[in-house]
Amino acid sequence: VKAGVGGPPLLDALRAAVGEAHVLLGADAAGYEVDWTGRFAGTAAAVVRPGSTEQVVAVVRACATHGVPVVPRGGGTGLVGGAVPRAGAVVCSLERLTAVGDVDPTTPSVVAGAGATLAAVDAAAARHGLAVGVDLAARDAATVGGMVATDAGGTRVVAHGTMRRHVLAVRAVLADGSVVGRVPGLVKDAGGYDLAQLLAGSEGTLGIITAVHLRLVPRPAATTTAVVGCGDVADVLDRVAAARRTGPLLAAELLQASGVRLVAAHLGVPPPLPEPLPALLLLLEVAGTPDDAAVAALVGGRPAAVALDAADARRLRAVREGHAEAVQRAAAALGRVPRKLDVTVPPGALADVLAELDRRDPAAVAFGHVADGTLHVALLGAAADEDEAALLRLVADAGGSIASEHGVGAAKAHLLHLIRTPAEVAALRALKRALDPEGLLNPGVLLPPAP
Amino acid sequence: VKAGVGGPPLLDALRAAVGEAHVLLGADAAGYEVDWTGRFAGTAAAVVRPGSTEQVVAVVRACATHGVPVVPRGGGTGLVGGAVPRAGAVVCSLERLTAVGDVDPTTPSVVAGAGATLAAVDAAAARHGLAVGVDLAARDAATVGGMVATDAGGTRVVAHGTMRRHVLAVRAVLADGSVVGRVPGLVKDAGGYDLAQLLAGSEGTLGIITAVHLRLVPRPAATTTAVVGCGDVADVLDRVAAARRTGPLLAAELLQASGVRLVAAHLGVPPPLPEPLPALLLLLEVAGTPDDAAVAALVGGRPAAVALDAADARRLRAVREGHAEAVQRAAAALGRVPRKLDVTVPPGALADVLAELDRRDPAAVAFGHVADGTLHVALLGAAADEDEAALLRLVADAGGSIASEHGVGAAKAHLLHLIRTPAEVAALRALKRALDPEGLLNPGVLLPPAP
Repeated sequence: VKAGVGGPPLLDALRAAVGEAHVLLGADAAGYEVDWTGRFAGTAAAVVRPGSTEQVVAVVRACATHGVPVVPRGGGTGLVGGAVPRAGAVVCSLERLTAVGDVDPTTPSVVAGAGATLAAVDAAAARHGLAVGVDLAARDAATVGGMVATDAGGTRVVAHGTMRRHVLAVRAVLADGSVVGRVPGLVKDAGGYDLAQLLAGSEGTLGIITAVHLRLVPRPAATTTAVVGCGDVADVLDRVAAARRTGPLLAAELLQASGVRLVAAHLGVPPPLPEPLPALLLLLEVAGTPDDAAVAALVGGRPAAVALDAADARRLRAVREGHAEAVQRAAAALGRVPRKLDVTVPPGALADVLAELDRRDPAAVAFGHVADGTLHVALLGAAADEDEAALLRLVADAGGSIASEHGVGAAKAHLLHLIRTPAEVAALRALKRALDPEGLLNPGVLLPPAP
Repeated sequence: VKAGVGGPPLLDALRAAVGEAHVLLGADAAGYEVDWTGRFAGTAAAVVRPGSTEQVVAVVRACATHGVPVVPRGGGTGLVGGAVPRAGAVVCSLERLTAVGDVDPTTPSVVAGAGATLAAVDAAAARHGLAVGVDLAARDAATVGGMVATDAGGTRVVAHGTMRRHVLAVRAVLADGSVVGRVPGLVKDAGGYDLAQLLAGSEGTLGIITAVHLRLVPRPAATTTAVVGCGDVADVLDRVAAARRTGPLLAAELLQASGVRLVAAHLGVPPPLPEPLPALLLLLEVAGTPDDAAVAALVGGRPAAVALDAADARRLRAVREGHAEAVQRAAAALGRVPRKLDVTVPPGALADVLAELDRRDPAAVAFGHVADGTLHVALLGAAADEDEAALLRLVADAGGSIASEHGVGAAKAHLLHLIRTPAEVAALRALKRALDPEGLLNPGVLLPPAP
């Protein structure tokens, strides 16, 4: 980014763009300068909170004029430093764009501002017996704009795919200040390259999403929730296959005994299965209410807790969803910031990856969406950069991905070559140059610095 | 495209790339120089039939060296001149890349060569109780590569979305001869911009897809098929809503009495409802076998034919699927080539569009996937370019799309501005320049010539 000349100083231009009350500095800005884990942090030139797409345009133009990068920020629940200022960037928080439109029950779909939380959009959908097709534990903070920008996954991917599959259209501000995308969009529109799909997963490096048009899915009327104890990875995969046979599989979450104990202590509840816990536990959610024989087939004679009602199901899910906070708390007690890896591990490599993880950091906690291969890893011990890199390399060599959720961010940009060929990286760079030739939007994220 | 220097003459280079038997000239090439309707045609420098991704690379390199454009071609079922040579281009037919891999019943998904037909891939899926999520009448000719490149729709969009939603990964050759995309891909991989989703719907202008990894959907065990007579568009929309209430809606196809008579005569069968036919007929497919009360609610007291068995259902579907051929035949009898428009019409504008169509060409036949707004129009009368443009403008002004299926092609590139803002067209142009700076791949398709 080259500094512009003329015009008011940056802060004046930003205040003109969004109003004085929405330009935050110093202590007011501090909460926007760090990610959820505390691992990634920087100093912002300012934090701005535009109230409309037009104000986002004005922010982008002001930053372009002054040669200052812009970092778009949603709910701040990312784990890869993708929404944290670097080098005095301006953080553009979309938190005020919270409008949720009327649900169109026919498509079915809904339009929401980028800053609307998943919980808010899902609540609107629920009033029509519908749901957002993606669900995740951070639903009260994560915004739909951020979820599209990072192609969020979560627990329901096995049933409905990742966030991009639900995107019918987005409105976005490009680096040149132009606005693209018709919202609401059409279910069918083959009129040129799909900018919405290109922006989905681009982590704010190609444009700033200000509104999304999301397809909705039917809300399952009844769900069977169970935690099943498993001896090893093979046993887990066997139970996932059994769950697929039982009914439409909504979620299959792998947990470790160590993680479950951490969460139970954090929540002050007993573990879902009696001690001694099996090494691995599997949280299964299947649509419908299978009969006793089907539940028996699902459990397959293993130790299990099957929810009898919605409260039971919530308690079982809480053990899964409490992992992030419990891990954070445990790390803090050790005076550490956890290193978090979110990777895709092919089923055949899962046992090896868990073993290597245990070897490098016996205190590590792993959990994830085993049906689609996502493994969330928190290194709580004294793991070093080289341990992290070695684990990511192991995953990549096994045919997995070093970025299953949250995106590449700043954390893994230098390792993108592990999963993308030089030709692919060159193509991604060409696309970035095409839409953001000055490197205004979220520089340092997704792509490594040019060689 | 600038002519290169040195190296063998073009034809020698192409023969070296794919073997002499797979470089077609003259009469052998004729079938590749025209589209299905006969409306779009050109003369190719040669037609090549590579047998591997590596051979596609060699073809692209040879053409780049000689400054000759490349037009990728799938099954040749497009209707917008998207796969027809212009200005002495080389046609690169993917017809030999027909391999269909083993179905992975877990994901569930399958890998297929770009030249595999929809029917071939769907047959492989059927052996596992699965289906390709997109279905269309041209299934025996349309290839999965072409379907991804044009983001094909068809009759099942209301249930499963368009082709891009089923794409997990593609392998493609870019204009610089580089190969991108890992096939099979992963269900979860947030590692950078999604090239597969950018190539989907790019109509061969950004890369040549050589293999696709497609998600599969469950094959519905039982389907209820009915044709319901409707008085007007409001009645049609009312019945579509009723069908949504009856069960998961798989298809809702709008037909006109005139089109149904044309098809019945062409097939030598009676129309599905007794004469006098209602003005509009609606072919509905609903998953499951609703009871008598549900069928009565579906039909709502209107004249109707409900399939009692699979043979009945096939006969009802044949009336829908026979439209393309019957229209082509009727036009030929008039000594004309039909003008075909494939547009998305918002429900509120459908009656107006049909009325304007009738006013401009009383012989026109319209049919389509009414639940997602797709209207296929065949102008059989003496309609002129101005009639076609006026109809497309009407659709665009109503908030629809001039390109619901088949893409923009060469036919509508000059009208892209009707549905895309200058900023959006500029962004599309920037992406094209980024990946194909010399304009080697399918020039004249999708984007209008630079101003």
